[in-house]
Order: sequence, then structure tokens, then C-alpha cells
Amino acid sequence: MKTLKRMEELDFKNTGDRMLKLIHDLYPICRSITGEGVRQTLSVLKELIPLDVLSIASGTEAFDWTIPKEWNIRDAYVEDSKGNRVIDFQKSNLHVVNYSMPVDRIMTLKELQKHLHTIPEHPDWIPYRTTYYNQSWGFCLSHNDFNRLKEDDYHVVIDATLKPGYLNYGELLIPGQTENEVLITTHACHPSLCNDNLSGISLTAYLAKYLIEQPLRYSYRFLFIPGGIGSVVWLSRNEDNISRIKHGLVVTCVGDSGSFTYKKTRQGNAEIDRAVLHVLKASGKEYEVVDFSPYGYDERNFGSPAFNLAVGSLTRSTYSQYPQYHSSADNFDLINAENLSDSFEMYLRVINVIENNRTYLNLFPKGEVQLGKRGLYGKMGGLQNRPSSELPLLWVLNLCDGDHTLLAICERAGLHFDEAKHAVDVLIQHDLLKDLN
Amino acid sequence: MKTLKRMEELDFKNTGDRMLKLIHDLYPICRSITGEGVRQTLSVLKELIPLDVLSIASGTEAFDWTIPKEWNIRDAYVEDSKGNRVIDFQKSNLHVVNYSMPVDRIMTLKELQKHLHTIPEHPDWIPYRTTYYNQSWGFCLSHNDFNRLKEDDYHVVIDATLKPGYLNYGELLIPGQTENEVLITTHACHPSLCNDNLSGISLTAYLAKYLIEQPLRYSYRFLFIPGGIGSVVWLSRNEDNISRIKHGLVVTCVGDSGSFTYKKTRQGNAEIDRAVLHVLKASGKEYEVVDFSPYGYDERNFGSPAFNLAVGSLTRSTYSQYPQYHSSADNFDLINAENLSDSFEMYLRVINVIENNRTYLNLFPKGEVQLGKRGLYGKMGGLQNRPSSELPLLWVLNLCDGDHTLLAICERAGLHFDEAKHAVDVLIQHDLLKDLN
Amino acid sequence: MKTLKRMEELDFKNTGDRMLKLIHDLYPICRSITGEGVRQTLSVLKELIPLDVLSIASGTEAFDWTIPKEWNIRDAYVEDSKGNRVIDFQKSNLHVVNYSMPVDRIMTLKELQKHLHTIPEHPDWIPYRTTYYNQSWGFCLSHNDFNRLKEDDYHVVIDATLKPGYLNYGELLIPGQTENEVLITTHACHPSLCNDNLSGISLTAYLAKYLIEQPLRYSYRFLFIPGGIGSVVWLSRNEDNISRIKHGLVVTCVGDSGSFTYKKTRQGNAEIDRAVLHVLKASGKEYEVVDFSPYGYDERNFGSPAFNLAVGSLTRSTYSQYPQYHSSADNFDLINAENLSDSFEMYLRVINVIENNRTYLNLFPKGEVQLGKRGLYGKMGGLQNRPSSELPLLWVLNLCDGDHTLLAICERAGLHFDEAKHAVDVLIQHDLLKDLN
Repeated sequence: MKTLKRMEELDFKNTGDRMLKLIHDLYPICRSITGEGVRQTLSVLKELIPLDVLSIASGTEAFDWTIPKEWNIRDAYVEDSKGNRVIDFQKSNLHVVNYSMPVDRIMTLKELQKHLHTIPEHPDWIPYRTTYYNQSWGFCLSHNDFNRLKEDDYHVVIDATLKPGYLNYGELLIPGQTENEVLITTHACHPSLCNDNLSGISLTAYLAKYLIEQPLRYSYRFLFIPGGIGSVVWLSRNEDNISRIKHGLVVTCVGDSGSFTYKKTRQGNAEIDRAVLHVLKASGKEYEVVDFSPYGYDERNFGSPAFNLAVGSLTRSTYSQYPQYHSSADNFDLINAENLSDSFEMYLRVINVIENNRTYLNLFPKGEVQLGKRGLYGKMGGLQNRPSSELPLLWVLNLCDGDHTLLAICERAGLHFDEAKHAVDVLIQHDLLKDLN
Repeated sequence: MKTLKRMEELDFKNTGDRMLKLIHDLYPICRSITGEGVRQTLSVLKELIPLDVLSIASGTEAFDWTIPKEWNIRDAYVEDSKGNRVIDFQKSNLHVVNYSMPVDRIMTLKELQKHLHTIPEHPDWIPYRTTYYNQSWGFCLSHNDFNRLKEDDYHVVIDATLKPGYLNYGELLIPGQTENEVLITTHACHPSLCNDNLSGISLTAYLAKYLIEQPLRYSYRFLFIPGGIGSVVWLSRNEDNISRIKHGLVVTCVGDSGSFTYKKTRQGNAEIDRAVLHVLKASGKEYEVVDFSPYGYDERNFGSPAFNLAVGSLTRSTYSQYPQYHSSADNFDLINAENLSDSFEMYLRVINVIENNRTYLNLFPKGEVQLGKRGLYGKMGGLQNRPSSELPLLWVLNLCDGDHTLLAICERAGLHFDEAKHAVDVLIQHDLLKDLN
Repeated sequence: MKTLKRMEELDFKNTGDRMLKLIHDLYPICRSITGEGVRQTLSVLKELIPLDVLSIASGTEAFDWTIPKEWNIRDAYVEDSKGNRVIDFQKSNLHVVNYSMPVDRIMTLKELQKHLHTIPEHPDWIPYRTTYYNQSWGFCLSHNDFNRLKEDDYHVVIDATLKPGYLNYGELLIPGQTENEVLITTHACHPSLCNDNLSGISLTAYLAKYLIEQPLRYSYRFLFIPGGIGSVVWLSRNEDNISRIKHGLVVTCVGDSGSFTYKKTRQGNAEIDRAVLHVLKASGKEYEVVDFSPYGYDERNFGSPAFNLAVGSLTRSTYSQYPQYHSSADNFDLINAENLSDSFEMYLRVINVIENNRTYLNLFPKGEVQLGKRGLYGKMGGLQNRPSSELPLLWVLNLCDGDHTLLAICERAGLHFDEAKHAVDVLIQHDLLKDLN
């Protein structure tokens, strides 16, 4: 059976550079949960992978939710009485509270201040704020700029529209040998923010681009969706086939220099949980594991009680862990190509485990197999320690009793998945194992 | 549905004072496992709560046991040759070994000494000793007084009777919405001893007095029984209905200043075990948990193999932990109203959990519920942390899948029971949850 | 029911001396996996216990293996050009690589060196090496001797034969009350090596000699087999009755001064695992527990996936733990009679647990049994602590509910097996317990 290309043959450095390039391309676009920004983003991705772009009309119901009106923005600013733009959307799309209603008024500083948002603890940073489901408007700015504002009559303009339109998302199914699916999903609704979530969009796109050329056991479904409402909508439109999803990961925050964090699925000990934990442990790197909670990213919806899908989330720093989260400091200073390629490799290693986590049967289960006569065992007896290549063979033969997947064998025997897989390959070559799948 | 009064509305200080007052009233009575002392005690309690007083005749068989003859005592003393009472029951009913046979003899010091009991390590204290099932007699005194006794001819009098009569116990059933019962039981056989067990009698009585006025889901059965034989007798007379008892607690040693100790049920992980552990943990106080053992108080009988009832015991210091146990030092120096009210509150909190530990179903289990449109979610998006009131709502909705009781939700989510219950109330108000009970 | 003699009556000192004497008798014999050495060894053992000696012809197939040709050796040496034996089999049978092909040639030092084996880290020791399944030859010598060899023409002689013959092993079944078996097995193929494995042969033989005179619940099967191939052959010839084996232990390395090591069965929590762990813990001595791995001694074959027998291994130091392993330093300096008797006692204690690990039913399960009226409970009530003899009685009565074996009771109650067994005996005497087996 053909399988994924071996890790050793992959050029992760190059992939990291290309992922970073894609982030640069997408950074200037002002995304939101609806609107031109999302469509432009999906268009860029379509140059890389054969994405389907779906459009759901405003007003469509999706479980407890309704698709909101489409939001688009051309410009926004606050001008002082001398005509100076003291806040300017053209300089950063974070300056406008995302989904703000249109405004065109003159107002005093006091009146204006009710609509201004800052981060006093980080006085140089512009916060990222949204008002998707509450008709309102506002501006975000650095606390230092906020302090510089004087009494004046300000011309406040938000040249935005909120009208019936569409919610869009991108979807790509790479068919594998079976209809069983692995779901790789990322939100694609944040404006100029690098780690959360452009890094997730980029890694997901390059993962799709890589897997599309591989022989695959599972089918892989990739989603680029607006956070929250997007996963609700997707679930509501795919309810009948949801049981095909066997494993899933939410991708975001994969470009910063923090160590990995894995948030478990709601099930808590699903195969994807065990696969990620195995790969993280085998990496020798520091990492953190947190239990599922109904807060965070779209695992909230995939892990809602009616679905309870085995969807975890593998990130580097997560929302609660890094101060730059949802601010203008989540920019190109925070991420780099090396971290992106490192994250990409970790995702591929997880997929490698999931793809190869099969169950095999030892065809000579009575007593030990005589490895020596097959050239698989050292010739000299009596040594204090056996060559290290022999133990994986012995473990795999001993535990291939039909009850242990390859991952379960690794967990019990303390083997790395790759050495266990290598032992399986050798033993199959010698007609000692049978693939039960 | 109506439920227990909220903790915040209760005046525990006042309850502690009243509990202490009751202990003062009961202290002088010379109780034993049978006799006038028990009946007087139950009479005092009947002024507080509508107790049934049951009488079982001597000689009645109860499983492996037989109701003993009834013991009553009028007076007892040891008089020296000059007519001085060197030991005097009138000064402390602990001076006579409980259930001593009548005696009226002159004897030498040497002969007398065979019948004297002291605690050499605490030479000021009078021990409490019993001889219920072994016809014998004796006196207890401080080791200092013992050392002061000189050679003399002593007149030894125990003016007691041991004759066919009755064993008595008090029982009160407060009916709730269901026939499922919570058993609250205390032994009521100790003479002038405050912590073990007058504190238990008093707390149990005031718990009954409180619950009798509350709307209750469970029925509550209160027992005031002689230790050991009392629980055997009660079990033997209620064998057919024992399966109604779903949860139970043995009450004693609840007035001293020690931290709480919970002795688990024989089942080891019963709902009452989890409820008590949750409440103790949530209290933020120090506490100790010990496993069930077939020694201690009446949990020995409720946890005998044929019944294996979920009966634990929540005490402060327990018999093995405080030196004053079963001695004259278990007096009003050891207990106070504050400790009693603190224990009372802890019991009520446990009952609150048991009463409200229901299973609810999220009526919108597909994807997240849109809390925002119901005013239950902050209007501003993008914040680093959500308001603390939102997380309990999200957890309760996520885990109300029909498989989790409210206590199980708290255990998994790390919520306090009260905040989870509050979330349930809010969600039911908004027609988002359904009570499955 | 009669049972094993009480530990206290046994003279372990004497047994240790006799075990050491047997090792002295067997030490000089040059054993291998086939040949005269094994037969001589089994003959010596037959003087002690009524062993059956089985013979399986070379070429016979056994699962994935084939019985090899029989190997015998008369002499072997390397002589320098002056006629001095610089390596001499007569001085130590370790000097020849076990199963070496016959050789009679003159060769240079350079040519000879390709066939020489040493342990550079321990330059005084002769290694033990084998070449059972790979036709080859060689000599083992101390690294110091190796360094003393000079350029010369050496006469190299191995006067050995490798011809069709037999593989032999010894077997003894001591029938008990039931056909359920305990397997006690040791390899008997090592030449002059004391700890691994003459200590195992000797302990196994004396265990058989002791048990043959005891009333036994289980049948005990003792095997003295060549390592590896021997257990494969035995399994292949006894496949139909293998399910009779309920518990098993591989015996070796029981004479050195290391603390005990228990290697668990493949099942991991079998009764034999729990019995050994209980006995080790109760001993108060240091010990180590390691999980099963498909490497080590014959547990590899007994724990192969088709059989998965509950066979663990109780040793002192194990192969991976002591430097003298498989070298001439595994001699009489490494072992002594005290360690042997200590190991013997530990094995007997394990067998004692297995033999007596029955399930009993409390015949008075409703409420506590009244021990006092049977003279089993102290007469004085109210004491702070009960006499230590009472608690085992209470625990055994409480947990003899039909669901707990005696070992399970000990594990839960923290009792030593002997005190629990004593409590059982007392309670059976008083008609309070019934043996459910």
C-alpha cells in the first residue's frame, strides 16, 4: 500500500517561507464574518488549492442562529476641526470596530470617547474589537493616541454598509480510500492579524496543497470559515454526513514562538487526542495539554452536545496565553517562517499517525517468531543488551494480537510511531504480519 | 419548582447558639443504650421536632443480636470508712462504667482497684467506659484521684437495675416529592459527653427542624438511636424498605474546632461521597477524606454487606483524632456555637447539592446556543477574556447532554455547584434547558 | 481443609544450604540447549524429585522453530607453537562459544582474533556467548589474556559434535485438588553460571521437593527447559491443555544480593501479579516492579499473543541490572545460601497467597456480627482503639460479600494476607463464614 511521503524527504524550510509569503499577501485585506474581505481571501487561496466557495444568503437560519446582513467598508476616519485625520482606517483596518454601522456626524470629544476602545496596559497597541450581532459602531486606537485627543468638534465617518448579502466560506474535500473524514478547519474572518488567524489560514492551505498529491487512507475536508457562525452554518448544512468525521483539528496561532498547546476534544481520549499527544511527546519539545472547554475557537460548535465530534485544536500560544492576542501587535514581529514550518511538520506527523494507525495480526502468534532465520536477529547469543532494532520487532509481534492499533502498541511499548511503523513494514515484507484493515 | 431556601438567607449564627443551648439541656442526663436517659433525651427533642419514639422489648431478636435488658441507675458511689464519698456518680455520670450491675459491698482497696478505670496519660480526666454485653461493674475516675486512694474498707454502691424493659429510639420521616430517602442518623446513647455525641444529636435535630419547613425532593429520615444495637434493630425492622435509602450520613463530633473529616461510604464513589467532597473542596477549608472501614460509628451496620448503603460520615475531629474522645474532657471547653453553625452549614450545603443534583437536557444541542440574542452574552466581541458569568452558561449548555448530572458537570468543568445551579436557573428561564427528572 | 504448612514451621536456613550444595554439584557440567550436559543435569535433579525427562528429536518442528542438531563437546583449546594451552576449555567451559562447530586448524593470531570474545570493561572476566542457530565457532577469554596473546601459529581445536540427536527437558506435575495449574519454570541450559541460571534450577527443584509433600489446591507443573526453544517446544506439545495454567512464574537469578524485581505478566494485573506485589509489599523490603516486555526469559513465549499466559518472573537482580550477568563473574562470589533461602521463602509466600486466595461468604451479612458473644471482641466498651486482632475480623466479615477474594480484601483493607487468613480460620471455626470455592 502506498502511503504518505516520508518526513525525511520533505522540505519544511521552503514550506515555511511560502506560508509566510501567503500571510503577507492576505494581511492587508479587511476580513470580517461576511463581505468582500472573505471573498478576496478565498480568491487568493483558490490560486493555491481547488477550493469551493459557498454563499449563504443573509436571513438563512442555521440551528439557533441566523445569517446576518453582509458588512462592507470603504473608509472610516475621525477628523479634527483642522481637517487632520486623528484616526484613519486606511492606516490599519483594526481602527474600526468590525461590523460597525455607518456613521457621518460631528461630535464632541466626550461623545466620541464613548465609542473608543484602547488597551491601557499596552498603550502602543490598537485593540481588535467586533460588534457582529449588536448594531453599534466604534473606533479602536492606541491608548497613547487616545490620550492625545483634545477637546474639539470631530468629524466621525464610517463609510460602511450593512445590507442583505451573503456569508461565504471555502471548502475542499480531498477524497481518500475511504469516506471516513479528517476535518481540518480554520477561521478566516480576522482582518490584519498574523498569528490569530492568518497563520492558521496559511498552514491549512499548505496542508491541503500537500495532501492533495498524496495517496490517502482518509478523506480530508478543509474548511476556511468565519469563526463561530461559520461552523454553525457548515454543521447545519452537513448534518447528514457528520458521522463520517472521525478526527478533526482546529488550526490557528501556529506562527508564534510559543511552545505547542493541544486542547483535547470533548471526548477527551479520542484517537486524535492520542495521536497528537504521541507526536508531541515524541518530539522531545515542551508542550502543554489542556482539557476541552466550551470556549475558544470552533471546537465549541464541533463539540456541541448533539455532535460531540472528535475535534481538538493544536496551536502554539493560544488566545489566553499571549498578550498580543487580538491587537495590532499580532503582526509580523510575532511570527516567522521557522515556526510556521515547525507547526506544519507537527501537523503532518499527526496526520502520519492517523493515516498509519492500523491494526495488524501476527501470523505466527504461538511462541516467539524465529527472527534469526530471517536475518532479523543478531547472530551472537548471550549479549547483555540486544541491538536496538530488535526490540520494536519483538514488541510489534507480541502486541499485534488484533486488539492493539499501532498507536496503542507505541503507547504501551514506549516506541516512537516511526520505529513501530518501520518494524511493521519489515515484518510485512517477511510475511509475518497481516493488515486487518 | 420550589427548592431549598438560599444559603445567603439563613442565619447560621443564631442556629449555632440554639444548637449549643440544646446540648446544655441534654448534657446532665445519664444516657445509655437503654433506659430512662434515652427516653428523657427523646422527650426533650420532641419539643423541637415531631419525633416518633419507638420501644422494642428486651429479648427481641435483631439479626445476630438480641435486645438487652434495660439498664437504669439512681446513684452510685464509693465511700471510705469515714463516710466520705471518694467517687460520686452525682458529680459525673461518667464515674460509673455504663451498664454496670448493681453492687452494695464493703471491700479492700486492692479488691476495689480491679474495678477502677483511669487514663494515666491524662491524669485529670475521667474515662468513659461501657460494659453493655458483659455483665460486670466498675468505676471510672481521674488517675490523680486513683493515686490518692489509700488502704481502707470501702463501701461500694451501684444502685442500678438491669431488668426486662425496652430499647427506645427516635425516628422522624419528612416526606418529600419522592419516596427516595436521605438518611440522617446519630447515636443518642452517650452520657455527659459534648462532641461525641451531643453535638451530633443537636445538629441532627436542628437539621430536621429546618428541613421540615422546606419544599423537598427527597424524603428525609432522621434517626436518634443507641449506637451499634440501635442501627441493627432499625435495619431489622425496616428491611423491606431499605432500598429507598439513596444517600445517608452519620452525624457526630460536629462541635469541636478540628477541620472536617469525611469518611466515605462502603461503595466509595456514591453520589453522597461526591457531593460531600465537592462541598468540602468548594469551601476552601482544610479537610481530610478517609476510606470506609468497618469500624467507627453506625456506618458499620449501614455498610454491612447485605445492605451496603451509601452512608458516609461527616465529622470534624473523629474518634481516632482527638485525645478528649470518650473522656470527661469532651465537655463544653471542646465545642462552641461557631463550630456547630459551621458544621450545620456544611451539612445544608451537602443537602443542597443532593437536592439539586438533577439531569438537564440542552434543548438546542446543535452548535452553540446564541446567548447574545437573549441578553446573556457581552455585546463586545474580540475581548481576551469573557465575563465570568458566561463560562458557567457555556459549560452547562455543553454538558447537559443527558449523561451528566449537575454535580458531574461541576466536577468536569471545575464549577462551584451554586454557580452551575444559577446558570441552570437562568437557562431554564430562557427555555434553553429541560429538567429530565 | 488441610493447607500448606505454616511458614513459621519451616527451616529456611537449612533449605538455603541445600540449595547452595545442589548448585555446587551442577556447576561443573557444560550445559547447552541440547546434549549430554542437560541430561546429566536432569539426572542429578531426578535424585531429588521424580522428574520426567522428555526427548524431542532434532528436526522436529515446533511452531516457527525446528529442534536443532544436538551439540556435545569433549575438549577445546588454543595451543601456541610451544605447546602451551593459552585458552583451555578444561579450565572453564565458558571459554568456548556455546554450540561452536568443530575446528582443528593452525592459524595466525590475526585469523584467530576474529573468533575471540572479551569484555573490555571487565578485563578479568570471561564472557558467556552462544551461537545456537548460526553455524560458527569461537572462544571467550578475559580481555587481559587476550592482550597477552602474541604473534604466533596457534593450534585451534574444538572437539565438538553437532549431529542429529535430541532436545531434552525435565517436567514434573504435582497433582492438587483441581486440574488448574501453577507453572513454575526455569531454563536449564547455561553452563558454569551461578545466578543465571543455576540458582533458578536449584530453587525450582527445592520448591518441587517441598510442595510434593503438601496438600495442594492447585496442581503444580515444574519445567526445567532449555531457554527459548524449550518453552516453544513445550507449548507446541501441550497446546490443548494450556488453558489449565492459571498462574505462572519464571525462576532465575535468585541467589544474588540484589533486592527483588518482579516483572509482570503480559496481562498486567493477573492474580499472580497481585499476589507477588502483595507479598513483596508485605515483606517490608525494597523491591522493584517492571512491566512485561517481550524480551528477557521464557515469559517471552508464555506471553506470546496466542497464549498470553499469566506468567510473570520473580528474580533478585535481573539480566539488565548486574554487570556479572553472562560472565565468569556470575560465580559463587555472587550468590549465597541466605539469599537463596530468602528467595525460596518469598516464592513460598506467593504460593501461600495463591493457594489460599479463596472467596468466602459472610453467613450473617445483615448488620454487624456480634463478635462479643463468641468471645472474639474485647469486653470493655468505649476504648479509643480496639485490640489489633479485632479489625481483621471486622474487615473480613464486611468484605466477604461474594465479590472479594481474600487477596482483594487485603488490598482494600491494608491487611497482611496471613492475618486475613487467620481471621478467616477463626470465623470459619465459629460458623460465620462459608467457603464459596
